[in-house]
Amino acid sequence: MIHGPNLGLLGRREPETYGRRSLEEINAALEEVAAELGAELEILQTNHEGEILDWIETMGNRVDGFLVNPAALTHTSVALRDGLLAVDRPFVEVHLSNPKAREPFRHHSYLADVAHGVVFGFGSESYLLGLRGLCAHLHG
Amino acid sequence: MIHGPNLGLLGRREPETYGRRSLEEINAALEEVAAELGAELEILQTNHEGEILDWIETMGNRVDGFLVNPAALTHTSVALRDGLLAVDRPFVEVHLSNPKAREPFRHHSYLADVAHGVVFGFGSESYLLGLRGLCAHLHG
Amino acid sequence: MIHGPNLGLLGRREPETYGRRSLEEINAALEEVAAELGAELEILQTNHEGEILDWIETMGNRVDGFLVNPAALTHTSVALRDGLLAVDRPFVEVHLSNPKAREPFRHHSYLADVAHGVVFGFGSESYLLGLRGLCAHLHG
Amino acid sequence: MIHGPNLGLLGRREPETYGRRSLEEINAALEEVAAELGAELEILQTNHEGEILDWIETMGNRVDGFLVNPAALTHTSVALRDGLLAVDRPFVEVHLSNPKAREPFRHHSYLADVAHGVVFGFGSESYLLGLRGLCAHLHG
Amino acid sequence: MIHGPNLGLLGRREPETYGRRSLEEINAALEEVAAELGAELEILQTNHEGEILDWIETMGNRVDGFLVNPAALTHTSVALRDGLLAVDRPFVEVHLSNPKAREPFRHHSYLADVAHGVVFGFGSESYLLGLRGLCAHLHG
Amino acid sequence: MIHGPNLGLLGRREPETYGRRSLEEINAALEEVAAELGAELEILQTNHEGEILDWIETMGNRVDGFLVNPAALTHTSVALRDGLLAVDRPFVEVHLSNPKAREPFRHHSYLADVAHGVVFGFGSESYLLGLRGLCAHLHG
Amino acid sequence: MIHGPNLGLLGRREPETYGRRSLEEINAALEEVAAELGAELEILQTNHEGEILDWIETMGNRVDGFLVNPAALTHTSVALRDGLLAVDRPFVEVHLSNPKAREPFRHHSYLADVAHGVVFGFGSESYLLGLRGLCAHLHG
Amino acid sequence: MIHGPNLGLLGRREPETYGRRSLEEINAALEEVAAELGAELEILQTNHEGEILDWIETMGNRVDGFLVNPAALTHTSVALRDGLLAVDRPFVEVHLSNPKAREPFRHHSYLADVAHGVVFGFGSESYLLGLRGLCAHLHG
Amino acid sequence: MIHGPNLGLLGRREPETYGRRSLEEINAALEEVAAELGAELEILQTNHEGEILDWIETMGNRVDGFLVNPAALTHTSVALRDGLLAVDRPFVEVHLSNPKAREPFRHHSYLADVAHGVVFGFGSESYLLGLRGLCAHLHG
Amino acid sequence: MIHGPNLGLLGRREPETYGRRSLEEINAALEEVAAELGAELEILQTNHEGEILDWIETMGNRVDGFLVNPAALTHTSVALRDGLLAVDRPFVEVHLSNPKAREPFRHHSYLADVAHGVVFGFGSESYLLGLRGLCAHLHG
Amino acid sequence: MIHGPNLGLLGRREPETYGRRSLEEINAALEEVAAELGAELEILQTNHEGEILDWIETMGNRVDGFLVNPAALTHTSVALRDGLLAVDRPFVEVHLSNPKAREPFRHHSYLADVAHGVVFGFGSESYLLGLRGLCAHLHG
Amino acid sequence: MIHGPNLGLLGRREPETYGRRSLEEINAALEEVAAELGAELEILQTNHEGEILDWIETMGNRVDGFLVNPAALTHTSVALRDGLLAVDRPFVEVHLSNPKAREPFRHHSYLADVAHGVVFGFGSESYLLGLRGLCAHLHG
Repeated sequence: MIHGPNLGLLGRREPETYGRRSLEEINAALEEVAAELGAELEILQTNHEGEILDWIETMGNRVDGFLVNPAALTHTSVALRDGLLAVDRPFVEVHLSNPKAREPFRHHSYLADVAHGVVFGFGSESYLLGLRGLCAHLHG
Repeated sequence: MIHGPNLGLLGRREPETYGRRSLEEINAALEEVAAELGAELEILQTNHEGEILDWIETMGNRVDGFLVNPAALTHTSVALRDGLLAVDRPFVEVHLSNPKAREPFRHHSYLADVAHGVVFGFGSESYLLGLRGLCAHLHG
Repeated sequence: MIHGPNLGLLGRREPETYGRRSLEEINAALEEVAAELGAELEILQTNHEGEILDWIETMGNRVDGFLVNPAALTHTSVALRDGLLAVDRPFVEVHLSNPKAREPFRHHSYLADVAHGVVFGFGSESYLLGLRGLCAHLHG
Repeated sequence: MIHGPNLGLLGRREPETYGRRSLEEINAALEEVAAELGAELEILQTNHEGEILDWIETMGNRVDGFLVNPAALTHTSVALRDGLLAVDRPFVEVHLSNPKAREPFRHHSYLADVAHGVVFGFGSESYLLGLRGLCAHLHG
Repeated sequence: MIHGPNLGLLGRREPETYGRRSLEEINAALEEVAAELGAELEILQTNHEGEILDWIETMGNRVDGFLVNPAALTHTSVALRDGLLAVDRPFVEVHLSNPKAREPFRHHSYLADVAHGVVFGFGSESYLLGLRGLCAHLHG
Repeated sequence: MIHGPNLGLLGRREPETYGRRSLEEINAALEEVAAELGAELEILQTNHEGEILDWIETMGNRVDGFLVNPAALTHTSVALRDGLLAVDRPFVEVHLSNPKAREPFRHHSYLADVAHGVVFGFGSESYLLGLRGLCAHLHG
Repeated sequence: MIHGPNLGLLGRREPETYGRRSLEEINAALEEVAAELGAELEILQTNHEGEILDWIETMGNRVDGFLVNPAALTHTSVALRDGLLAVDRPFVEVHLSNPKAREPFRHHSYLADVAHGVVFGFGSESYLLGLRGLCAHLHG
Repeated sequence: MIHGPNLGLLGRREPETYGRRSLEEINAALEEVAAELGAELEILQTNHEGEILDWIETMGNRVDGFLVNPAALTHTSVALRDGLLAVDRPFVEVHLSNPKAREPFRHHSYLADVAHGVVFGFGSESYLLGLRGLCAHLHG
Repeated sequence: MIHGPNLGLLGRREPETYGRRSLEEINAALEEVAAELGAELEILQTNHEGEILDWIETMGNRVDGFLVNPAALTHTSVALRDGLLAVDRPFVEVHLSNPKAREPFRHHSYLADVAHGVVFGFGSESYLLGLRGLCAHLHG
Repeated sequence: MIHGPNLGLLGRREPETYGRRSLEEINAALEEVAAELGAELEILQTNHEGEILDWIETMGNRVDGFLVNPAALTHTSVALRDGLLAVDRPFVEVHLSNPKAREPFRHHSYLADVAHGVVFGFGSESYLLGLRGLCAHLHG
Repeated sequence: MIHGPNLGLLGRREPETYGRRSLEEINAALEEVAAELGAELEILQTNHEGEILDWIETMGNRVDGFLVNPAALTHTSVALRDGLLAVDRPFVEVHLSNPKAREPFRHHSYLADVAHGVVFGFGSESYLLGLRGLCAHLHG
Repeated sequence: MIHGPNLGLLGRREPETYGRRSLEEINAALEEVAAELGAELEILQTNHEGEILDWIETMGNRVDGFLVNPAALTHTSVALRDGLLAVDRPFVEVHLSNPKAREPFRHHSYLADVAHGVVFGFGSESYLLGLRGLCAHLHG
């Protein structure tokens, strides 16, 4: 699980858009669903694109897939796209809010066309559905 | 549950894009998840945009929400958008394939920005995730 | 008089946008103005684009002109444009709301450039003004 | 009532586009309809954008609404838009011809999205319909 | 052979654009060429997109190919494209007029890039050339 | 002869772009060529678009044609275009500098497509050539 | 008959796109159909745009119409368009492949909107259909 | 100091956008800062673009720089740009509101790229900051 | 003097657009004006872009400037622009017709921004004005 | 105060664009103005977007507002926009140079529409004006 | 080795852009590097696109690859692209100058996406690097 | 030598696009060519844009030029452009693959127009050619 820039502020940041659950609560819910599905979960949150790329490079051989909330990097980072393609693992893109209902510059994603699947708009439930979708695919 | 144009051919139509499960198999899986979640499901498949609009008008007062695979209407139907807004019920948009990875004219949706949530790219699993997401919201 | 898709819901559908008068009330007001102007009126409301085309084909030789609220078809139907041109009768395009003040995809009309006149933004009064304008032209 | 640039030439100017009625005849017809509706009318025609703005500033507190044929200013004047918004009175935009059937630079209006209503294409009848629509709204 | 919306008016509709032959005369000429080439022909004309889709679904297994004059649907119907792809039969797109010489919105076709061949601009002769081209391909 | 906004500053204003001749010198040279060609010349310079429109309205019946350096109005004034069309006299558009070699917003002219002819880039010589071209046409 | 640049390589050049028939075989088939229709045929193949223009200028008075496969010049040559218009003879544009199914820069043709008719996508059969269509028009 | 069209209504006009201070109060504050900085100030407010141009022409030789709130002319007046360039004096562009946060047609300025500096969004404080910036440059 | 492609047909080619004077008549008139101005003239007409480039390369050191009617090459030839720049001589671009009043693809010129001056729309008079303008510049 | 990427090179880097004052000199001048206004200032300069985001997250609760020179991040960083919005503090955007007078990709800012105010083009004076504007707002 | 239009002027033509080495000097340097690498070189320079196409057709079977400086044809010739693809040999595109740093119409190349490699901006050194790159690939 | 994000994965990452040589092998080949040319080489690979900027700032005074494979930053980083310009050293941009033959968002580079030269498409050979080109320029 990769949480992109500014997600450390969840719960405090624009709650009408991103909901009131903190990152810790979301991570706990994810761990719970992972346990139910018999999956193991590693979690990263960072504001540094470079650290995400390092982590993908390191984790590429150790995990079966990635669950990614790229946050603002969704719309600007070709490097994140390239990094995920480079390690050749399926990944699922998730968003708390519905980016299509927000500013035009949030309508384009550099990840969506190479993602295995995409889930957005359900608030923190998006994470749990994304994890279910990824596991369904991996156990396929 | 609304299945849009050409979905009656599922399983036979371009299986490398839409998968091998028939519409009946998908509907059975949906019924199963609905039962697990304690929800009731009405299902429509039609090639006529007008019939979908009539059905939404009729069902508007009887259901709590809609699960919609608008198929080709995703990209062309302002009428479907207007019809769904008119009855004022939350709906979830689902797709079998990943439209962002296909032709440019499939990248735009007339529904996504007013949908409660959107799920695509997981094959027939998209339907089940969409139904879970819709119920989570309604019971939320 | 042609009422396009979803107008059967008038009065109940998003009243802050479309007003509180029902389709029946609007039709009655239209009949009243028609009587005042010595004109006869045939009225169609349908959610099916195909039925509008059939009706135009049938009525083409019987009427002197058309009053059309194309609703969502305004922005997508080349067929409606072609059908109205095919029978070679003047027509007036009317809208309850002001489409220029709404979403960008409502800013373009496939009918306006071949209409005799256009009236929008006056709520149900738009219909009455459009009828007056059409009759002024036909008696002109 | 505001008549924009070049409308002083009405009746002589490109009659196949703008009709054969002179500005005086149109003003007389407007006065007649105003009388029928119990309304009072002030009329301005000028080729100077600045004079229109001065007049709106002066008349803003004295009138209930504006009827505007902005002519060429429709497509180029943000100042006219700002002036009409500044005095906070409803206004109706009218055109003799159908700008959508003319050159592309006439398809956009800086006023339409903030107008109460819009009427175009009916020749000099457009003025009368616009006045009726404005009064219907004010007497609402 | 599929004739799209408004083609029932052929011979009466804008003859300077679409020619003076009626649909019946065109169908008779098509039957004649089909007989010459030893081919059998089924013919549909309808204003309802849904009926075309139903017919393609039904006829998909019975015919070797389609000859299609999609009329106004050329420019708007993703569903027609999807329907023709779904049954996996070669088809030829024909037009009476030359859409490239008409309004800009007629310059794009949703069918041309997946058609086996395209013929336009020859008036009713376009149908006969299209039929010859389709048969040459099927016997080729 | 109509000189548009800011041309009163000629000779002092950006001489590397507009040359060193003053407006008076250019007018004198124009009078000289007019005399040689047996033509009479009226001259206006103003910074007010409205005054230009008033003048065109007044002069429309008295002159055989207009020579216009619209200056900045070239790119912004639909009213100037409409005024010149309204009086139905041929006109020639001239510029001192080459607008195609300057900022992109100077590449478009609202007058060029309805002008009889256009001359630009020759410095003050552009005026003299434009006058010769206009007279050749009127005497043609 | 005009064959544009690089068509001398037919049969050897990218056969999956352009087919396996050589230019000589296509010309022989054209001669055969011409004989069947009682028409005479002159044929040019050259890689030089200038030679095509010279030839059109020379042949303009001697032929009743042109059959043109402009190849790459389709997308870049305004001069070819001007040359064909200058001699005022109907012409038919043909292509072996379907340019709409290839790179975007092949989607636009400088000839199609002024052609009498267009045929593409049928391989070498396109030539024969084009010739039939042209003769039908000339004898029409 | 140049105040463009409609600014005479400040304090009364859309106060949520433009603030509650009147033009007189802003001018008084400007005089105060000018005094503090040892600068002299001439002030113009007009709704007429032509008057602004006349004034710039007249004042060009008498002042060291201009402070300009071009209001609606920001987005439409090439003549204002040309006039300011013609007299070759540095100028500072100021706005009360933040035009980037308003309608798209307010995002472009014809002055910003040739201004010495730009200040916007601070309400009436924008004027005072702009004056300080201009004086810092002139004394710099 | 360079005459571009298809100009050998002048007088016969679309006379309502290009006028009735033949190329020989235009050349004679040019010689006459050249004699009056004490200038010498070399003339080329060809349909081959390559021959124009060879000629510019050869003549570059022998002439003081070029008068060019690039015809269709105006809109497509970067090579002509490069050739004229390479020999570093001033040139004037002329057109018989007004390209701004014709199809959109004729609105852009690859030469205009690097030309000394441009003249168009005066029919064959354009050539004579262009020659005068070029000589005025060279003797200037 | 946040200084974005490459600003550590100020004074040495392209002095004709960015001026000759070093970052230390600018910071000293800022401290001086802050003292005059009774404000306290924290300063960050870094080439790492992630460090800026961390700092905003940390400082969000401790400061009343931000003064930001986002440098190159202005045009590319959605994350910086999101970070500043997340902590819900007013901020002012400043630039040394005038980005509107530079390359087109510098004309768009991801911050300007959500900034309290914007100041650019005054060289290092921009910082001081921005600080005054921010304090005026906070004390406002 | 193919040298496109206007390259015969090298050394004399705009030396600040294209350098001071003549075509003969560049060819000699190329022969030298070819000898070092054990490769044989044929060289063509012409201003005629048609001659380049003829030459490619002729040389297609005799050479292992092409080194091409297409000059102005880079931006306009689909025929050159088609010709190089038709003979199915790898080719390398080279430019003396950096087209990305010049006018926007030089930013697009019709060859780059189908070239084996591209080298530009190194002056005459670009040729030598391109030849090394081509040989490395062929011997690869 | 600067290697941008994700290049640490070379040899393992999408080898059909990026080739099978590892970064170590490429660096060794670079050292070899540098030795041949009598040049010294410093090498950086990092996934952090900020580290690249720090390094450029530090190395700016110590090196004669930069060889840069910006990888994904090519298309998104204005900061990298600014950093390279700030230290005022010539740099060469290289790519293993041909970005013009890939997704549209890879067609634009923020570096190419300010690079001394660009080399792409030759696989790891691109680096060696780029180094030769840079040294030729520095010793030139």
